[in-house]
Amino acid sequence: MTNLYMALTHYPVINRNGEKIASAVTNLDLHDISRSAKTYGIKTFFVVTPLCDQKGLIEKIVSHWTKGAGLKYNPARAEALNLISIEKTLEDTVENIKKDCRRFPKIVVTCAKKKDNSITMQRFRSMIKADGGTYLLVFGTAWGLADELISKADYVLEPIRGNTGYNHLSVRSASAIILDRLLGRDF
Amino acid sequence: MTNLYMALTHYPVINRNGEKIASAVTNLDLHDISRSAKTYGIKTFFVVTPLCDQKGLIEKIVSHWTKGAGLKYNPARAEALNLISIEKTLEDTVENIKKDCRRFPKIVVTCAKKKDNSITMQRFRSMIKADGGTYLLVFGTAWGLADELISKADYVLEPIRGNTGYNHLSVRSASAIILDRLLGRDF
Repeated sequence: MTNLYMALTHYPVINRNGEKIASAVTNLDLHDISRSAKTYGIKTFFVVTPLCDQKGLIEKIVSHWTKGAGLKYNPARAEALNLISIEKTLEDTVENIKKDCRRFPKIVVTCAKKKDNSITMQRFRSMIKADGGTYLLVFGTAWGLADELISKADYVLEPIRGNTGYNHLSVRSASAIILDRLLGRDF
Repeated sequence: MTNLYMALTHYPVINRNGEKIASAVTNLDLHDISRSAKTYGIKTFFVVTPLCDQKGLIEKIVSHWTKGAGLKYNPARAEALNLISIEKTLEDTVENIKKDCRRFPKIVVTCAKKKDNSITMQRFRSMIKADGGTYLLVFGTAWGLADELISKADYVLEPIRGNTGYNHLSVRSASAIILDRLLGRDF
């Protein structure tokens, strides 16, 4: 187990016009990201939404696969979705991590654009390995995390560059690549 | 541009009981994998299905984002989905690559289980970089590619290991990680 937690945030994020919104939950985000989180030993995968109906939707999906018919159909899926904890805000998430491991996490946000204070994947990988700190890695939905959230973070993780100028990975793909870069065995 | 092509295969694949089936197309497979393919400079992303109704569904989705209302809504998505070519069989796919670059590709299949003749990610990365060969990297849907397809391949790529024993990534996540390992810049 690593000392790394993850959050997928549905508020505050921005839409295509740069306006602050609360986004809707995407079913496959829950499945894909919890499966990646389980593969790389993430402690808890927090899904953050302030909307009651969206919380209800997540509960229904998670419950189907961890307690309902889905558990028998595909038990491996239950192992992944059991990592999910639903939170109203990022502040609640941080409090819960404090309860879980008695330390406040440093918050590391992801962003498709490079920022002045970005840290490299390699540096963050070393930090996770070396200093025994506790980190919360935050991903956004829709067109990405709102600036107010990015500016409050302890660190901004550099964006993934492929080998073209195209910079539009899905959050499902981006989170998988980032976990592999941070926690994957050397290959 | 690399000399690497990709295929997502819906037949022959296996279901949870190990039986050979033709799987249904998943909308987000098309979006996520084409976005990853575009990020890493894949030449063509072949979506392989022998089923006419599924071919129609893929055409409808691709057309919406590359020619219809989706093009105006999100032009970056069109760039990705334009990489898609729909094929009936893997044999047709190979013929089309031959037409495109005048060489038959070596077929490299992915598999969640390690095989005796698996090649490592690092070796395949070196092969792509070094020898100027043409490769078709094949991913399966459902519970994975059927053995008859795996046994005919030139190479089997080793599976992704995270840092736990859990080995159930989605094809969207697995393909993103593999492209990053094969083609991503050193970080």
